[in-house]
Order: sequence, then structure tokens, then C-alpha cells
Amino acid sequence: MYGSTFGNIFRITTWGESHGRGIGVVVDGCPAGLSLCEEDIQAFLDRRKPGQSRFTTKRKEADQVEILSGVFEGKTTGHPISLMVANTDQRSHDYSEIANCYRPGHADLNYDRKYGFRDYRGGGRSSGRETIGRVAAGAIAAKLLKELGITVSAYTYSIGPVQINRANFSKEEISNNALYMPDTQAAQAAQEYLDKCMRETNSSGGMVECEITGVPAGIGEPAFEKLDAALAKAMFSIGAVKGFEIGEGMEAARLTGLENNDAYRMDTEGQIMKKTNHSGGITGGISDGAPILFRAAFKPTPSIAAPQETVNRQGEEIEIRIKGRHDPIIVPRAVVVVESMAALVILDAMLGSMTTRLDKIKEFFDK
Amino acid sequence: MYGSTFGNIFRITTWGESHGRGIGVVVDGCPAGLSLCEEDIQAFLDRRKPGQSRFTTKRKEADQVEILSGVFEGKTTGHPISLMVANTDQRSHDYSEIANCYRPGHADLNYDRKYGFRDYRGGGRSSGRETIGRVAAGAIAAKLLKELGITVSAYTYSIGPVQINRANFSKEEISNNALYMPDTQAAQAAQEYLDKCMRETNSSGGMVECEITGVPAGIGEPAFEKLDAALAKAMFSIGAVKGFEIGEGMEAARLTGLENNDAYRMDTEGQIMKKTNHSGGITGGISDGAPILFRAAFKPTPSIAAPQETVNRQGEEIEIRIKGRHDPIIVPRAVVVVESMAALVILDAMLGSMTTRLDKIKEFFDK
Amino acid sequence: MYGSTFGNIFRITTWGESHGRGIGVVVDGCPAGLSLCEEDIQAFLDRRKPGQSRFTTKRKEADQVEILSGVFEGKTTGHPISLMVANTDQRSHDYSEIANCYRPGHADLNYDRKYGFRDYRGGGRSSGRETIGRVAAGAIAAKLLKELGITVSAYTYSIGPVQINRANFSKEEISNNALYMPDTQAAQAAQEYLDKCMRETNSSGGMVECEITGVPAGIGEPAFEKLDAALAKAMFSIGAVKGFEIGEGMEAARLTGLENNDAYRMDTEGQIMKKTNHSGGITGGISDGAPILFRAAFKPTPSIAAPQETVNRQGEEIEIRIKGRHDPIIVPRAVVVVESMAALVILDAMLGSMTTRLDKIKEFFDK
Amino acid sequence: MYGSTFGNIFRITTWGESHGRGIGVVVDGCPAGLSLCEEDIQAFLDRRKPGQSRFTTKRKEADQVEILSGVFEGKTTGHPISLMVANTDQRSHDYSEIANCYRPGHADLNYDRKYGFRDYRGGGRSSGRETIGRVAAGAIAAKLLKELGITVSAYTYSIGPVQINRANFSKEEISNNALYMPDTQAAQAAQEYLDKCMRETNSSGGMVECEITGVPAGIGEPAFEKLDAALAKAMFSIGAVKGFEIGEGMEAARLTGLENNDAYRMDTEGQIMKKTNHSGGITGGISDGAPILFRAAFKPTPSIAAPQETVNRQGEEIEIRIKGRHDPIIVPRAVVVVESMAALVILDAMLGSMTTRLDKIKEFFDK
Repeated sequence: MYGSTFGNIFRITTWGESHGRGIGVVVDGCPAGLSLCEEDIQAFLDRRKPGQSRFTTKRKEADQVEILSGVFEGKTTGHPISLMVANTDQRSHDYSEIANCYRPGHADLNYDRKYGFRDYRGGGRSSGRETIGRVAAGAIAAKLLKELGITVSAYTYSIGPVQINRANFSKEEISNNALYMPDTQAAQAAQEYLDKCMRETNSSGGMVECEITGVPAGIGEPAFEKLDAALAKAMFSIGAVKGFEIGEGMEAARLTGLENNDAYRMDTEGQIMKKTNHSGGITGGISDGAPILFRAAFKPTPSIAAPQETVNRQGEEIEIRIKGRHDPIIVPRAVVVVESMAALVILDAMLGSMTTRLDKIKEFFDK
Repeated sequence: MYGSTFGNIFRITTWGESHGRGIGVVVDGCPAGLSLCEEDIQAFLDRRKPGQSRFTTKRKEADQVEILSGVFEGKTTGHPISLMVANTDQRSHDYSEIANCYRPGHADLNYDRKYGFRDYRGGGRSSGRETIGRVAAGAIAAKLLKELGITVSAYTYSIGPVQINRANFSKEEISNNALYMPDTQAAQAAQEYLDKCMRETNSSGGMVECEITGVPAGIGEPAFEKLDAALAKAMFSIGAVKGFEIGEGMEAARLTGLENNDAYRMDTEGQIMKKTNHSGGITGGISDGAPILFRAAFKPTPSIAAPQETVNRQGEEIEIRIKGRHDPIIVPRAVVVVESMAALVILDAMLGSMTTRLDKIKEFFDK
Repeated sequence: MYGSTFGNIFRITTWGESHGRGIGVVVDGCPAGLSLCEEDIQAFLDRRKPGQSRFTTKRKEADQVEILSGVFEGKTTGHPISLMVANTDQRSHDYSEIANCYRPGHADLNYDRKYGFRDYRGGGRSSGRETIGRVAAGAIAAKLLKELGITVSAYTYSIGPVQINRANFSKEEISNNALYMPDTQAAQAAQEYLDKCMRETNSSGGMVECEITGVPAGIGEPAFEKLDAALAKAMFSIGAVKGFEIGEGMEAARLTGLENNDAYRMDTEGQIMKKTNHSGGITGGISDGAPILFRAAFKPTPSIAAPQETVNRQGEEIEIRIKGRHDPIIVPRAVVVVESMAALVILDAMLGSMTTRLDKIKEFFDK
Repeated sequence: MYGSTFGNIFRITTWGESHGRGIGVVVDGCPAGLSLCEEDIQAFLDRRKPGQSRFTTKRKEADQVEILSGVFEGKTTGHPISLMVANTDQRSHDYSEIANCYRPGHADLNYDRKYGFRDYRGGGRSSGRETIGRVAAGAIAAKLLKELGITVSAYTYSIGPVQINRANFSKEEISNNALYMPDTQAAQAAQEYLDKCMRETNSSGGMVECEITGVPAGIGEPAFEKLDAALAKAMFSIGAVKGFEIGEGMEAARLTGLENNDAYRMDTEGQIMKKTNHSGGITGGISDGAPILFRAAFKPTPSIAAPQETVNRQGEEIEIRIKGRHDPIIVPRAVVVVESMAALVILDAMLGSMTTRLDKIKEFFDK
């Protein structure tokens, strides 16, 4: 079955694998009239580009995006926007080992079972490069959201055992360190931890947190299209995510109603506000006007050079050491992927909310 | 926008609110030839029925299901199966207080903002009664999965600070205690904790865990229709869920690759197997043949009798004490909801996987 | 696979078969705030009710609709509206003959091949009664469209060889005759033709025409969601439709560009208008501001008492005479079905068009 | 709203406009294991390429397709197949006239109303070049169908007043004449008629007929996903289609039940067969085992050099003569588009039918 399309109204379809001719995305349902150029998108892509620090793979991926359709005289036309990034750094690796065995923590075996065979070069469709399409589309969504007063901001929340301290939180710091952590001290400690992992030919997991501000109350749909359900699916659609939580998250299970409920008060401008934000900005699946705050947990990079037990296609038990240029941690490069997926979800929900009330529909059509 | 339809192939649409004439679901895409009677469905519904212990509301809800269509001579016909449960216990409450104010932890304010007004009786569409349709449909999905050798089993994992001890795990125990906990000791401690919460007119959160066995490797789609992404959305579509994790879950963020990767070995029957199951049965979004194991965290019941600060529709700050018959904890009654949603996801993914390989398609059509 | 859901935003799901407990529909995505009561819907259903003239079956079907959810204090809440009509006239027919053979012009054989068996009572899901759900939902769509200044009006265009004469067209006449024809003389001739068919235990085909006014230019989407494509699908989803045409329709194939193009001129109020309407109100798949005008051709009722050749389930060639109370023509009762499906398509396209332009989206959200 | 995605399981998304960098399609949901190379697709594209006779535009469009993803070692991988054709013949036309006025029979005005502006170069997204993506995807669908024993064959049925004579029908003749007509005499008469149209700076409409053989009985879904409803939508999604009919089509409205019903008999091999095929291979929305036969009516090319009345963006009434290289008739180049869209519909319905019966599902999963 298909699986590469995401979104109800602002709808994207990604394509491409690690070693094909390119990677891309078609954005359908983008409103007409948004100023858009390749630089808008490139800025997002550059944030996931490898080779920017010693904690990301040394593979060289230029990842230059091209707008193939849907923009005329600098504005979106309302028609599909096709974006493509050519695959350039395709060394003629020797893939014979990977082709013949099942790497622990990867989907190799599952792919063989599912499709009968697989494109083993660089992970094929399960490669992290698949996220290029998401980020390119997310750049458009984020730009459009800005026009509606909404900002989406993701950053590294933890790396292995090192977690940010909210007391030290600094938005500016996010782009200052190679790990996109909003806490200088934590970033330092995390780098030391990662260096240790690398020395041990091992890898580390971590968490990304994302804050979305400016979403009015009332966005999201009851039942199955809850806003947090859409965010959860979006995050879990990113390869290595193993957990997702919003507001108090998993911790809410340990709280009481009195601790977890957000009381309502009036603010100084006569608007209703919540005194706290245990909900993380979504209550009953619908935005409650407070900032949306969620976290996604990423597992450690499965490709490690340390020896591991596995089997080959002949059913022989073997030992494997994954060679090649792999990130010791997925999280820093995943930050912009999380931000992109979140932007796609929020924009789609905003557009979807326009048909909720008859009075507003009549106003829209001047009736 | 619509939000009450779930599933790609086995597709359900739920309807109904707390105080309308009834609650129901239409199941479309159910294969023909499954034996089905009202008892099959009633057995599931009875597990979510209130009034079975002192930890669930004393409201009386008979919740008798009726099959209105789609079954002929005891078998599903392949056409939509319409199921309905009449609302019976609709006391003529005085809803004037709830109508006029915004209950903390509820979606009242969001609904007013979104729709301009709301059906305030018993929570309307955001009532827990909405899950009746899911459970009724889930009963069908679970019965169908059994024919494919797949079982789905959910239970209470924790209540407030009380968590099961895997060393004491007993499947039989699940249906033996009012809390559906698979650990006698934990169940006892949890009951004491809940009694305390109730005395304090407070409520508790908790977690549900779910194990799915028999799913072959290769189920789920890459990119956006990953099997764990579909499960995450399904769980977050349940009202009070604030966190979802699979396998090592949030904890995976703290592990290293060596700790988290599952090595492959050959079993005694010459089949490839994983030595461990850190992945929770899903790798790269696709089932890996091991049991699927996930947890969902539920927030504490927001309706509590303890006084809380809120505002009314006139913008006045007031204090509210929620009267009425409310569960002190959502988790025990949510167990069967989790099981149902999981069954819907797995069945849908199984059916979706039938069109993956040309060789199997040709075989299917005898070509 | 599922097949009982229709619409992208205003989305309906029908259920029920001829001899189950009832027939119904769930309307999801209906905006909040529309005044709605059972009489609004009943008025539409009464137009398809049989037994109102000698040209419709004598079966008695009360077809009383019940609103089960989604309406509170006389207004739609924005949540699913569940509508149900109980099946009442279920005589204990002897269905043994139909159960065992394949009626020419019916889907009996196809159903057996597809599902392995079928609910043979009264045609099961392929019964004309399936359209009850569509008409009930269409009544809501039509009421909502009226609030947007749009009217949908269908009528009988032809019966067998008898066609209306546009020179005699009278809107009032439509509800004056049993055949819903807007031309007194044609209606008279058609009745004589039908009497002849009935005397010969035969049946007749015919056409329904539908006019939609008030749709602004710009509704419908390019490529696959063209407005006429959606109408075509909607009409062909009605059981007996074998042809669909818009504007000049099939005849356009015989015209030249000069004959078929609609020239633009300015009207007296300074608005652009088309001098002619060969397009039938849709150009390039998008409404062009002129009234939308289309026709659907219905085949003759396949159930006739005249002897026909067929085979039974044992593969024996037999002769069959279909007993029972069958309409000699489908068209008059299909008029309201066409009107309902058209209303569903137009409303869905109107709602879908709200997210097309960034400037209007910003205005909507006050940005 | 989006509108560029088509299909439920075998799902395509087209992108591109006349004068962007290219035109393309993403095919998602294609089963793994189909042999596929660029030549397979090019053969289809070459059939719609202009410049092959005096009846098609002299524009030079190389239309070389490139497979960008989804194929590995000559076989489809089960992942999205991205296909692209670069736009090469983009003369720097003077578009100032077209930019400023509304061409009769085109969607120019509708686009301006809908989007606020339009890419006026060569028709933008409403250009016939949009069909390149459909044909490229259709080539894949047709190749896959062949593996299932199904062939799809379209040809020109009529041009203006000239219609094929079934007595002269010759399949070989289809590719022998520039008009793709299966009747030598009709092809000759049609060419004379077209020469006359061209001399008069006028254009002609026409019809395409399509025959599909090998579809087993039981394909298509009741209610809204009827096989003929899907075909109708597919055909009407092609720019210039104004009518669609299947089997007896519009003519069925004039027939009686005795004339239109297809009697069943046993064939010499003991199989049930229909004596006639008035239904055109689909009864009750489901394939009945006979060949599927339908026709689509195309309006005359709206772009003609003869003078026409129109208005410009300033609201001035003007006269326009459309310059440039335009086909005097759309039909011959549309033949392969019809064939492609039909292949997409049939393949999608075949795949969709695999989940209909529990017994076959159990067999598929070896249970």
C-alpha cells in the first residue's frame, strides 16, 4: 500500500532513496500567493546537512534544492510544488556485506520479508535521506505559518543521560552549538558524552523538544483527528522515534487531577488564560491557546562500528561491524525534521479548521 | 473538517455524544465471511461498562449493542456493519453550571472557541462514551485477527506511582481484579492508592500496556504509514492520552546503540529471531516478527470534586467543584479501548500489506 | 475495500440493506450552527418514497427519519450527524427463487463472485433503498447550500423516447406531475408510454437533468478533483446510471470550436459573463459562474415480469419472471437522489475552495 | 485543496505546468517485483507526443522520461516511483495578450477568480502537458495489468460527424493511421473533415472508445466506489471531456428492460456468460466478466485562430485570434491518456478487491 503521502489538505508526497538519482517531494494543496524561492527551502535543508560538526557523518551531501513547478514570478500558484535534491555523493561502495546480511536495529530483514528483496545501497528508502523531502516541504509550511502568526521551534532536549536545564534555557544558544541545545552547559556535557561514545565505536540516543506558539484555541478535530494524535503520528513517522509525549507526557500517569489540571483565570487584558500548561497546549485533542510543547525520543543510531551478532541471508550466524560514515547520534540533524513535521501538522489543522462554523463560512463567501 | 473516520481499508466511522439518542459506529471494509453476532461485540463492551467496581462511576449504562446491518445468516457480508448502543441513563441533570463555565482539564473552552457553542450535557462528543463505537468495532477487528493467528492483549501497567513488577506478571490475573492489572500485589497497592485519591476528592493517572503476538515480519509501510506511527495516532486519539512509547520507548533516548540494538540469531527451528526485543516488535516502522509491546500514558480524570479555579462564560473568575458520578481513574476502563484501537490498526495494516508484492498478487489471482 | 464513504470535507458514510433493521447515514464534517430538524430531512425522503403514483412500486415504506446525534437545541454541533430510517415493510417473501438464480441486469452474479455469497433479500446492499442515506444527507447539504445562495434542482428530462421540450419548460410543473417532468405535455406522453410498458410487463429507461445556480466562478480543483469529475463519479455511483454529460455533453464531440466555445462579454452591471453556456457551467474542471447543467441517463428497471433467460447457481439454464412490486421506471424516484448527490458534491467543493488563497486565509484568521 | 492525487492503493500524484522546468508524477503503492525500464514508459509517452502528423501541433516536445526512484536492478522496489520529463521547447513567446485576456473555452477566468492570478504561459497547470504524468503512470499500470491477464485498448471512435463503423473494425488499423481509428474508411473521411476545419481556422470534437478485457467478475465496490463511477471520474478528470457513457450509455435511457437486460447462459466450457453485453461489462458498479466498453466525448480544441469575442482583465470587450501551434483536435493524442487513466482505475480496483473475502485472506496469510 502507499505510505508516502502525508496531510489532509496541505498534502505532501515524498519519494527517493539514498542511492537513486535524487530525493524529492510534491507539495499539493499549498495556497496561492505565498512568496517562495529556493533560498527559503535551502535554509531549512542546510540545517539537516551532514558534515557540519564532528558529530555528524563526513559524507558530503550538497543537497541543493530545485523548485520544479508551482511557483510563478516568485509566488506559489496553488498548484503542486515539486522539489528535488539530486543525489551527488554516491561513492561506489562495496555493499556486498550489507546486501547479504541483516544489520541489527535496521529494517533490512523486514524489507526482505515484505518486498522479497531490497535496495541495500545506503539503506534505500529507509535511509535518513528520505527526510529531505519532509524538510523541504516543512520549510514551506513554516513560512506560511509565519504569515498566520505561528512559530515552530525545535531543539535538542537531551543526549544520552545529559538533559537541558530549563533554568539555563536560551533560544539564541540553539544555533550556537553543533548539537542545537538551548543550554550551553548541557551542550558541553553532551559533547563530552558523545566523544566517549565515538571512542567506544558506540552511539547515543536523545530527545528533541518542540514549542509552537501562536496557535489559537480551537484547532484540531475531536475523535481521530485530534491535534496531538496528528503530531504523534508525524513524529513516529520519523525513522528512529520510539516515544512521544506532550505537556506532562508519560509523567501525567503519575500525577493526580489536582496536580495536572490547568486552572483558568483572566489575564490583564480580559482574556481567558490557563494559569499553568500541564496540558502542553492541547486539551481533548484541540489546541487550548497555550503554547504547544512536546518531546520525541530518538533511539541511538543503529549503525555502529562495534562488533554485533547477526545472521546473513543464508541463515548463518555471523559478526558484523558497520563501516562507513555514520552519525554517532541522530538527534541534532533530526531537530529540523521534527520542526518540519510539526509545521506540516499545524498548518494542515489550521486549514482544516476553516470549515467548522457556518457563520464564518457565510462571512467568507460574503453571504 | 471531519474527524470521526479511522483506518485505510478496514475503516470505521463513529458517531454520537453522551446525551443524544445513542452512540454508534459504521465499520466499512470488513471482509465477507466472518461469523459475527451481537454477543461477540457485547463481550468487549462489557469490559468498558461502568459500575463494575468501586473505582468506576456508578452511572448505569446498559450499553446493549445492536447490529443494524452488514450481517446475514450469522456472517459478515462485506458491506457496512452498523452498530448502535442506545443511550439510556440520561438523568435530567441540572447542567446549568457546566453549561456556563469551563471545567479545568476539559475541552469546554476549546469547543466554544471552535464551534461557537457546545452540547454541554455529559461532555457531548468529548465524552468517554464516544469510545463505545471504537470498542464495538475493535471487537470485530480482534475476532478477525484471531482468524489470522494474531492476539491483542492490553492491561493496566501502572496507577499513579504503583507499577506492575514483571517478575509477578500473570495473564490470568488481568481479569481477576477490578483494575485489570496482571500483578496481584500491584493491584492491591493500586487499590489502596485509589482509595486515598477518592477520599481526597482527587483522581489519578496511569498507564496501559499492550502486547500483540502473531504479527508476521513485514507489516506496516515506510515513510508516513509506519506501523508504530499508526499505533501512536490511534492511542493519542483516545481522549486522555498524553504519552506513547514502544519497546524501550522514552528510555531509548538514554541508551547506546550497543544496548538498544537487537542482535539476530537462528532459533532451533532454523528461523531468524531477535535475541532481545528492545524495539518492541517494530523496526523502521515495520513489524520485525517479535511481539509488539507498547504503553500509553493516561492523565488523571479531570473531573474532580475538589475545588478548582476557573472562569465562566461571562469572564468572571469562579471556583468549581465537579459533581456527579466520575471515575477516579480512567485507566481500567480504557484497557479495552487501547486493545480495540490496537486491533483496528493491526488489522488495517495486515490488509494493506496484501498488495506489496507482484508475485503474491499473481498467485492471488491465479496468474 | 470500503466503498460507502463519499466526500472530502463534508463526508458521508451510508449503511444498510433492503432487509436489515434499517438504513442510515453518518454525516461527518458538517459545519456547526445550521438549523436542522427531522422535517428538513423528511421532506427530501418523501420525494423518493414509493407508492405515490401508479408508476412507483406499491411497497409501503414509511421511511421516517430519526436524527440520532449531532444536533443540539435545533442546531448542528459540528459533530457527526447520524440519521436512521427503520426498515418496516419486510414481508416474509419467498426468496428461494432469487436466492438460487441470477437476475439479468442485476449484480447477483457479481456479488456471489465477489463475496462468496449474498444477502439476496430485496437486493441487499444493491437495493435502491441504499439511496435513502444519500437523500437524507443531501437534504442537509442542500439546506446548507441555500445559506450560501446556491440552489440545486433536478427533474425528469426524458422517459424512453419522450423528452421535454425546452420551450414548454415550467419549474412549477415539476412537482405537479407524478413523473417530476417540467413540461405538461411531455409528462402526459410519458405516462402513456409507461402505461404501455407496464401492460407489456416491461420497463423503461430515462434521463434526469439537474441545474445548479449560484455557484461562484472558481470552485473545483484542477487535475483529478475537477468539479465535473466529482459530479460524474457521484452520478455513476447511483445504481442504474449508464451515461453522464455536462453542457453540450456527448454532442460536443460533433461540434466545432466556433460552435462550442462560450464568448465573454460584459453585462449591464459591469460583470464578465458568458454569452452562451455550452460548457454547462464548468470549464477546465472549475465552475465558470454560469449555471451548472448536467444530465444522467438511467437504464430501464431490470426487474420485469416478462420471461427472461438466465441460469441458476447449479449452472442450469432456466427462465425467470421477476415477481414482486417493482417500479416500471427508476427515473422519477431518482430525481431527488440526483439532486442530493449534486448538493453533496457542490457543498464539498465549496468548502474545499476555502483554502485556495493565502490572502483570504489571512483575512479569515484576522492576520 | 489538493487535487493532483488519484487512486486509493495504486496512487499517483502529478505535478508540473507547461512552462516550468518539467512535468512529472510520483507513483506510490506500486507492488514490488515488476520489471520496469524507461523504454516501457517512453513507448506510452511517444503515443501522445505532438508533431507526428499534420493534425497535431508542430511544437517539438522530446518528452524523454527519466526514472528518478523506486526501481532497483530493473525491478520496482515497492517504494515511490518518481518519473520526470523535462520541459524543453519553451520558446520565449510573447504572452502579453493571453496574460491580459480570457480565452473562450479555457479556464483563464476561472483561474484568476480562484487563485487571484495565474501562470499564463502555455496554459500553466491546465495545459495538456499535465497529462504526461498520467500517461507515464498509466504505462506502469498497463504493464502490471498485463501480468494479471488484463489488456486495455483505446482508440478514436468519432471525429466531428465521422464515426467508426463496427463492421469495418480492425484492431491493427488503430496504429496505422494518424488518428488512431480502427476503421480505414472512417479514418479517411475524418482526415478530410479535419482538413476542412483547419482551412476554416476552426477545430473539431470527437470521441474515444476503450475496451478492457480480462477483468474477472467481482471487481469494484458497491455504493460510492463503483467501478464505472471510478472510470467516469477518471475520464472527466481529463481536461476536455464533456460526456462519458458505458455499454448502451445515454442510449440506455431510451431502451426497455427487455432490450437492455443481458440474459445469462452457459458457455461450452460450462461457465456462466452473458448472451449480450448491453451493460458494457459492469453491472451494479461491479465487473460482470464481459469486456468493459466505454466512450468519452471530447469537446473541440478551444484554441482557434478564428476571431472570437472576449474581454480583457480591464473589463474591455475585445476580439481575439489565438495564435500559436494548436492541435485542431484533441482526440488522437487523448487516446493514450484515456487508456492510461483506465489502466490506473482497473489496477487500483483489482488491488482493492483483494481484501474482500476472509477465506481468501486466510489463504493469502497461510492460515
